[in-house]
Amino acid sequence: MLESKYCKISIEEFDKLFETLKNWGRWGEDDDKGTLNYITPEKIKAAAGLVISGRSVSMAIPINKSVGSDNPSPALHYMVNTHDIDIGSGELRFATDFLGIQCHGDCHTHIDALCHIAYKGFLYNGRSSTTVTVQGADTYDITTFAHGIVGRGVLIDVPKYRGVKWLEPGVAVTREEIEAIEQAEGVRLDEGDIMVLRTGHHRRRLELGAWDPGYTGQGRAGLDPYSLVLLHERKVSVFLPDGDGEVVPSNVDGIQYPIHPLQITAMGMVCADSLQFEELAKVCEEKGRFEFMTVIAPLRLPGGTGSPINPIAIF
Amino acid sequence: MLESKYCKISIEEFDKLFETLKNWGRWGEDDDKGTLNYITPEKIKAAAGLVISGRSVSMAIPINKSVGSDNPSPALHYMVNTHDIDIGSGELRFATDFLGIQCHGDCHTHIDALCHIAYKGFLYNGRSSTTVTVQGADTYDITTFAHGIVGRGVLIDVPKYRGVKWLEPGVAVTREEIEAIEQAEGVRLDEGDIMVLRTGHHRRRLELGAWDPGYTGQGRAGLDPYSLVLLHERKVSVFLPDGDGEVVPSNVDGIQYPIHPLQITAMGMVCADSLQFEELAKVCEEKGRFEFMTVIAPLRLPGGTGSPINPIAIF
Amino acid sequence: MLESKYCKISIEEFDKLFETLKNWGRWGEDDDKGTLNYITPEKIKAAAGLVISGRSVSMAIPINKSVGSDNPSPALHYMVNTHDIDIGSGELRFATDFLGIQCHGDCHTHIDALCHIAYKGFLYNGRSSTTVTVQGADTYDITTFAHGIVGRGVLIDVPKYRGVKWLEPGVAVTREEIEAIEQAEGVRLDEGDIMVLRTGHHRRRLELGAWDPGYTGQGRAGLDPYSLVLLHERKVSVFLPDGDGEVVPSNVDGIQYPIHPLQITAMGMVCADSLQFEELAKVCEEKGRFEFMTVIAPLRLPGGTGSPINPIAIF
Amino acid sequence: MLESKYCKISIEEFDKLFETLKNWGRWGEDDDKGTLNYITPEKIKAAAGLVISGRSVSMAIPINKSVGSDNPSPALHYMVNTHDIDIGSGELRFATDFLGIQCHGDCHTHIDALCHIAYKGFLYNGRSSTTVTVQGADTYDITTFAHGIVGRGVLIDVPKYRGVKWLEPGVAVTREEIEAIEQAEGVRLDEGDIMVLRTGHHRRRLELGAWDPGYTGQGRAGLDPYSLVLLHERKVSVFLPDGDGEVVPSNVDGIQYPIHPLQITAMGMVCADSLQFEELAKVCEEKGRFEFMTVIAPLRLPGGTGSPINPIAIF
Repeated sequence: MLESKYCKISIEEFDKLFETLKNWGRWGEDDDKGTLNYITPEKIKAAAGLVISGRSVSMAIPINKSVGSDNPSPALHYMVNTHDIDIGSGELRFATDFLGIQCHGDCHTHIDALCHIAYKGFLYNGRSSTTVTVQGADTYDITTFAHGIVGRGVLIDVPKYRGVKWLEPGVAVTREEIEAIEQAEGVRLDEGDIMVLRTGHHRRRLELGAWDPGYTGQGRAGLDPYSLVLLHERKVSVFLPDGDGEVVPSNVDGIQYPIHPLQITAMGMVCADSLQFEELAKVCEEKGRFEFMTVIAPLRLPGGTGSPINPIAIF
Repeated sequence: MLESKYCKISIEEFDKLFETLKNWGRWGEDDDKGTLNYITPEKIKAAAGLVISGRSVSMAIPINKSVGSDNPSPALHYMVNTHDIDIGSGELRFATDFLGIQCHGDCHTHIDALCHIAYKGFLYNGRSSTTVTVQGADTYDITTFAHGIVGRGVLIDVPKYRGVKWLEPGVAVTREEIEAIEQAEGVRLDEGDIMVLRTGHHRRRLELGAWDPGYTGQGRAGLDPYSLVLLHERKVSVFLPDGDGEVVPSNVDGIQYPIHPLQITAMGMVCADSLQFEELAKVCEEKGRFEFMTVIAPLRLPGGTGSPINPIAIF
Repeated sequence: MLESKYCKISIEEFDKLFETLKNWGRWGEDDDKGTLNYITPEKIKAAAGLVISGRSVSMAIPINKSVGSDNPSPALHYMVNTHDIDIGSGELRFATDFLGIQCHGDCHTHIDALCHIAYKGFLYNGRSSTTVTVQGADTYDITTFAHGIVGRGVLIDVPKYRGVKWLEPGVAVTREEIEAIEQAEGVRLDEGDIMVLRTGHHRRRLELGAWDPGYTGQGRAGLDPYSLVLLHERKVSVFLPDGDGEVVPSNVDGIQYPIHPLQITAMGMVCADSLQFEELAKVCEEKGRFEFMTVIAPLRLPGGTGSPINPIAIF
Repeated sequence: MLESKYCKISIEEFDKLFETLKNWGRWGEDDDKGTLNYITPEKIKAAAGLVISGRSVSMAIPINKSVGSDNPSPALHYMVNTHDIDIGSGELRFATDFLGIQCHGDCHTHIDALCHIAYKGFLYNGRSSTTVTVQGADTYDITTFAHGIVGRGVLIDVPKYRGVKWLEPGVAVTREEIEAIEQAEGVRLDEGDIMVLRTGHHRRRLELGAWDPGYTGQGRAGLDPYSLVLLHERKVSVFLPDGDGEVVPSNVDGIQYPIHPLQITAMGMVCADSLQFEELAKVCEEKGRFEFMTVIAPLRLPGGTGSPINPIAIF
């Protein structure tokens, strides 16, 4: 086992870590589910068993239509009809609208398809990155998750553990800290679990505004790359962070976003970005439990590299 | 109680039916959940109890990007980056894309916000239709369903009951037939349920192409308006049809789409359109049961009149 | 005649100026050309006579696809096909793309339709502002200029006259200064002319960046409202500024953008926004003349409130 | 000189014709203007001399927002604001809109950049087709025509010559017919000219609807490939057809659209598509002359493979 640490990581160490985490071939060369394979029918059934109080909570940020330094690609939302316009018969009117969204926009809660990331010309399982063309992804598109992702969500609430409102940009969460939080919360990440990592990114945005108001760079809090060894050992299936899981600036030489290729390309892990857990964290606090049924329903977009989502936690 | 029937309905009869079904004020004038109020925490908990075999099934049509006579507003899907483009550092590449969609497009599985329909200048609960402007809906937008819709889904499989592949356009499903199907399937639509109405629309499209290949009109199979009295009595919460629930041509004088204003405007019922149940129907058949946990997660789009969705059934 | 001045203007003075400039009914109540009526066939012929050296120059800013504090609605530009994709037969390939643009975006060179501005509920010529609905403009849309705008352009180069690189935000150009520049340049704005007003806005952007880098407000240089009396007397037909002709902050109490309603709503003047004259100014300087044939070709967009354009000066 | 003919052309004959027409290197390897080089300042000056009656006429089809069998990619046009919405100060309101357009859509009048077509992996002048990526064209994008295209337009009105309303799909215009029409009209296509080829396509659409109402194929009238030898000899600079200049079905084995690669890739000719000359043809008829000043002003879209345009003829 590699030792967890958060210090400068050379490209050679990164590549070694990549090899350590690699699930290529684990479920056969035709596999298109990656770590979703860990979620067995039994796991889904068990997750449903967590529904005790009958309450559902969204883990999505409201879709943001305004430009900001952390929202360079705001969603387009236009009305096609309002009720002033007579398109129905007689007194019946329909209001309709158009939504345009960059699926991987920094401020839009979205899930990544396994084709989203390429490292050294390869996608997960060793497929060629050239299978993604201007007309969309021929392999590992978002429709591989068409029937939804259902499982047990486990909230790892780092700011709560540290007694702070949020983590500041540049802060990394190590394996040791995750294990300590598990103990404090009385949960344990296990095979097939959906890891919900709260750094408090969204709360900081609500209170202080964008991470980086001047477009001059970006800062984020996220995972220490070596913490992925824990996720790998435990066979975690899905990763849901506020922010995108990355520490920015990166501590890996020459790799600006190390978490994405390790998770998606090496491990075939199902990852989402830009969720928010402010509503969720309150419910967990109230109920004193950090596990819940989770359902994610990506749009069935053929060729898509991702999808906007509204992940739902059910208590 | 009004008698169920499928014959010509005058506008006066329609307006009387509208009054019969009206839930305005039932949950107070500030209510923004409509028939979602029927889904209590107990109902959600009971729905989760239906998860026995741990299998999830999508009820969405794959997003259609090609023009067709039943898809006049195809989705726009463009790549923003492929892996040939160097936007990452070194060997790390990101493929990203843009999705544009008319939320209420005939071929896109979507949910309607309660603001979607106005009748005689009013939305559900008597609010003014002028609250929907070119900048979006100020009231009853799709964010009223932000925390997801979770409940018991009940499949009413009409073609299976009739022993046909699908209903032809113009065919109406009456109250009596729904009750007969309940008996045949061994289920009963109850308070807070999510009614899943299969007419076979999508199967017909897959086998024969669009309902109406020449743009010269449109035909659909759906509900007899009087069947809504049953849904009203039973306190059904959500309506999920393939097609849009309407019989086209309409049998109501002067009202081209009678189901929408009755359900959404009068009843405040949560409705979706253009689902498909071909995968679902097979699973129900195999398992010999027609009820299942259902989760719908509309995008949190402020001001939106609807949202594309991928509704998930969990067995 | 009102005296030109640049000082605080009360709303009563503004409304009086509005009345002074008003061309409503001047060309009949069915008129849809406004001040374009000043451009007679003779004027067009005379404008063509200015083509001596056979050189054409663009007056448009390159379309900007990146968010900036002066470009909150960047253009969307996506490839639909590249040559790597086989859509042709055999060895023949087509590269195609999609452009999405907010017609009146601050950084996109565009022309305003006469319906673009309403003041007190009225469009130019006293038509109701309610004729513009969510489905587009029923009156005074951009197709009233479908056959193009052709005439004599006259450059009023204010920075050149003042011996500065550009005007700073908040600076107003008065009637007296326009007259002084005419004398210095040896030109005179006359009936049917296209006035090209250079403040140096674009040069400042290229050298210093956006007017207002913090989104906290906006500053611009433009016309003193009373200078419009000169344009009215001289029967100027078209107004082409860099920036949008407005001084920001405004000196009119309660009217943030006074030039737009005076020009478009009162006068029915054809106006464009966000041009650039850096290339043009150099050619004028070289040739020692400030008049040239000008051609503007708005897209024929039914219902449109404006159009992106590339106005061409021909010497 | 090759003999003009309209019969089956083998791929070998096509490739030989490609070589005959090739202008690669003619204006140097850095050239980015292609046949626009033929338009000298003298030609522009002479074109302006054709402005006698001071009348301008559009050669664009109104932008079509509705799906049709000849408009599979209708333009998106949404209102951003109407005057009902208070975005101005006090009584001042702005109506604004959004336009989305596929630049090369069959029903949208547009100009092709020289990068639009690749044949055997090459663009005009032998540049590699890989210079066009998902992020746009690095070479020969539409900004090479940024300063507009100005010259003498010459209408070749084929239906008028034949005494028919329009050419039927599948009909080819040969070199001999063009020469006969020149004689009948009293004009001669010459160096630097803008050839305006009327087949009556748009008139047919207005009277009979789309060429091909069933999406099952497509038919068009256009140029015999060998007629391009005439354009090459005469040094024609720009080609403006109604339709797209192609005969469909093609008479070249294995090349569905032979005109595009011959004109754009071999010759470097500036080509537009989907114009209409119904208004123009009437003016030519009235005035008894078939030549006029022409101005085309493509949007300055960096990386663009084309642009929507409204080409203007000035008499």
